[in-house]
Amino acid sequence: MTGICIIGAGSSGVTVAKALRDKGLTFDIFEKGSDIGGMWRYENDNGQSSCYASLHIDTSRPNLGYSDFPIDPSLPDFLSHAQFLRHLEAYADANGIRERVTFRTRVDEVTPDGARWRVTLSTGEVRSYAHVIIANGHLSDPRMPGFPGQFDGEVIHSHHYRTAAPYEGKRVLVVGLGNSAVDIAVDIARRAEHVTVSTRRSAWIMPKYLMGVPIDQWTGFMVRRLRLPVTWSRRIMSRLIRLGVGDQRRFGVPRPEHPMWREHATLSQELLPYIGHGYIDVKPDVAELRGNKVAFADGTEAAYDAIIYATGYRISFPFLATSLFDPSTEAGRLYRRMVPPAHPGLIFAGLVQPIGPTIPLVEIQGKWIASLLSGAFSLPDRKEMEREIAEHLDHKRRTYLASDRYALEVDFRLYSSQMRSDARL
Amino acid sequence: MTGICIIGAGSSGVTVAKALRDKGLTFDIFEKGSDIGGMWRYENDNGQSSCYASLHIDTSRPNLGYSDFPIDPSLPDFLSHAQFLRHLEAYADANGIRERVTFRTRVDEVTPDGARWRVTLSTGEVRSYAHVIIANGHLSDPRMPGFPGQFDGEVIHSHHYRTAAPYEGKRVLVVGLGNSAVDIAVDIARRAEHVTVSTRRSAWIMPKYLMGVPIDQWTGFMVRRLRLPVTWSRRIMSRLIRLGVGDQRRFGVPRPEHPMWREHATLSQELLPYIGHGYIDVKPDVAELRGNKVAFADGTEAAYDAIIYATGYRISFPFLATSLFDPSTEAGRLYRRMVPPAHPGLIFAGLVQPIGPTIPLVEIQGKWIASLLSGAFSLPDRKEMEREIAEHLDHKRRTYLASDRYALEVDFRLYSSQMRSDARL
Repeated sequence: MTGICIIGAGSSGVTVAKALRDKGLTFDIFEKGSDIGGMWRYENDNGQSSCYASLHIDTSRPNLGYSDFPIDPSLPDFLSHAQFLRHLEAYADANGIRERVTFRTRVDEVTPDGARWRVTLSTGEVRSYAHVIIANGHLSDPRMPGFPGQFDGEVIHSHHYRTAAPYEGKRVLVVGLGNSAVDIAVDIARRAEHVTVSTRRSAWIMPKYLMGVPIDQWTGFMVRRLRLPVTWSRRIMSRLIRLGVGDQRRFGVPRPEHPMWREHATLSQELLPYIGHGYIDVKPDVAELRGNKVAFADGTEAAYDAIIYATGYRISFPFLATSLFDPSTEAGRLYRRMVPPAHPGLIFAGLVQPIGPTIPLVEIQGKWIASLLSGAFSLPDRKEMEREIAEHLDHKRRTYLASDRYALEVDFRLYSSQMRSDARL
Repeated sequence: MTGICIIGAGSSGVTVAKALRDKGLTFDIFEKGSDIGGMWRYENDNGQSSCYASLHIDTSRPNLGYSDFPIDPSLPDFLSHAQFLRHLEAYADANGIRERVTFRTRVDEVTPDGARWRVTLSTGEVRSYAHVIIANGHLSDPRMPGFPGQFDGEVIHSHHYRTAAPYEGKRVLVVGLGNSAVDIAVDIARRAEHVTVSTRRSAWIMPKYLMGVPIDQWTGFMVRRLRLPVTWSRRIMSRLIRLGVGDQRRFGVPRPEHPMWREHATLSQELLPYIGHGYIDVKPDVAELRGNKVAFADGTEAAYDAIIYATGYRISFPFLATSLFDPSTEAGRLYRRMVPPAHPGLIFAGLVQPIGPTIPLVEIQGKWIASLLSGAFSLPDRKEMEREIAEHLDHKRRTYLASDRYALEVDFRLYSSQMRSDARL
């Protein structure tokens, strides 16, 4: 019996599996759906994908590939979900991952059993593992806001949004100003009668291109080529972005109270121009739902046919009892963003939200995990793990907003250098 | 019997009619369709509108209104066709124009009758006028390219394009890189399987916004506020635009051989980013149609389900015998862009294509015509008119490309100051 179990064969599960295989480690990997790809498989039959038809990755191609498996340079700057899925499939197949996955098999329960873990599958089978790597994603349990009142029209969460077709000719309210909110608002803008975007705290709107070059390549250029400190490069970038998109207040999008780099900006090339063409307007937070109307915090009221809540996700692990691990408090308190100090046999992969690309970071997580499980290094004791977590949280408080939305935020460069140093990568 | 006839109640006809009315002149105005608005009336039953559902005016609001009837400042930067039509209707109604129009009445023939003009209507009636003002537009007779071979898929001219719906899931080739071509390519990009844009000479792609401000407001600011010479302001603008959108060659859009301001640029905020997202690709000219495939000048070939020819319009006046007035040679040879020297009783309104907004220019044309017809000034003799035309053509040759596409090109500032000086406006 193998000692390692991976839950989920999305991009994180596949990436970690590849790293384990490179170290000669054996593992079981269970996937609820019938194929790999997780959120990148449109209409994934595991029910967990929030992929919409127009979804494109907002990391540009050169920053997105695996270190040993770059993306075909004939592909465009920003890959569609389908192009990225094909890349992930090619990567999985080149590394013999797909045939190792047990598909259509849900993990129903993970419970401690002495120093090991009992894993109960949807087939009824129960297996025992020394290590359980949890890679089931954190973007599948929709968070719904609790606005007072009642709305009589159609309501969905962005998790269930697929195409603009159902919104043809309708008045649509999109709640939220994150990337999904704005992507969806733009996607339906030409087909809806009108789209309103409602935001509580607003967000910095960044273009995907600055002077014709993807914005993430600018940051990389300044930091890696010009060797500018991150703070300098961010200061310069803020100026350039202001210059590039102008003052977002001109379009009725308030400036957030925090400086530009203290939280994830919203990347959109189209939002501000679409406001300028009258496709989209911007309102503050929803105050009350009133039948077919919605009242906003500024005292205005408007009628809508549909509301799309692009209000994010709760982190949840249905196979873990909250008495064992409560995501709402503990997901952000993991040693090296992976290991809960109380249960070092559990390892969370991909439970991070960097400013910058996630997948290259998960590639490093995979190598870290593989090194750990092959004995190249060991976890520190619980006290040291707790100290590391406290230090991370302190750094995060100084760097990001103290918001639930940023529980998983990490500093790409700092975090990857920590993992590399631990595992001597 | 009144002495003045206006053909067409689109934006030009309405604008000229208002100017005549201000001078106390009476006139007949005939409109083939059942309402005013011309090309701005979506699905106009006069069959002449090439308006598509997503059409927005590319002149920004403050530069678009009439001098005595500004546009509601609560409207967005760029008005939709419907918003502009409502403005035009309000303008017509505020000036009592609509009730003066004879609707559902086509002008079938205009023939000389001594010093006067015989106008034959579709009702069979024949009337006589001293002056015929031709304001039937020049964007309704599709120009189709003559590519060798045969294409088996669907083919339309952009004149007949309305919405993206028929192109859902299809491979579409848009021929042309002018404003309609790019507008349409972008409009269908998210619904088509793929869109190719094919261009013979390429074009400069200009954003609609630069640093968050509509690009036409920049030019106005530099020329009117900073009092920079036009050449300087254009040089600065070219630099800013390059800075704003970057190098269009990075996206596979060749740089045209002419400098940026020597022809109408193509305004699009979305084209380059959409290429960067893989929605649209760019090919050179079509070499041959091959059944369900199209071969391009670079030797490549691709399969398409549909072709949209956004290849512009021929200038045509079906009610004028070409022996009397041949638009292909004479439309660009009008005194003050309005009067054919051989037939000074005919006056063409709106037969101009400025870099900048057309309607404010037509407003001045209307005042010029009204002054002329009320006797405030007279036309020079034929020789002087020919001289003025030669001078204009010479200026145009120095300013724009020698292309059919620019037969109607005028310099907004120069032209309006000439008209103002003639009519002491």
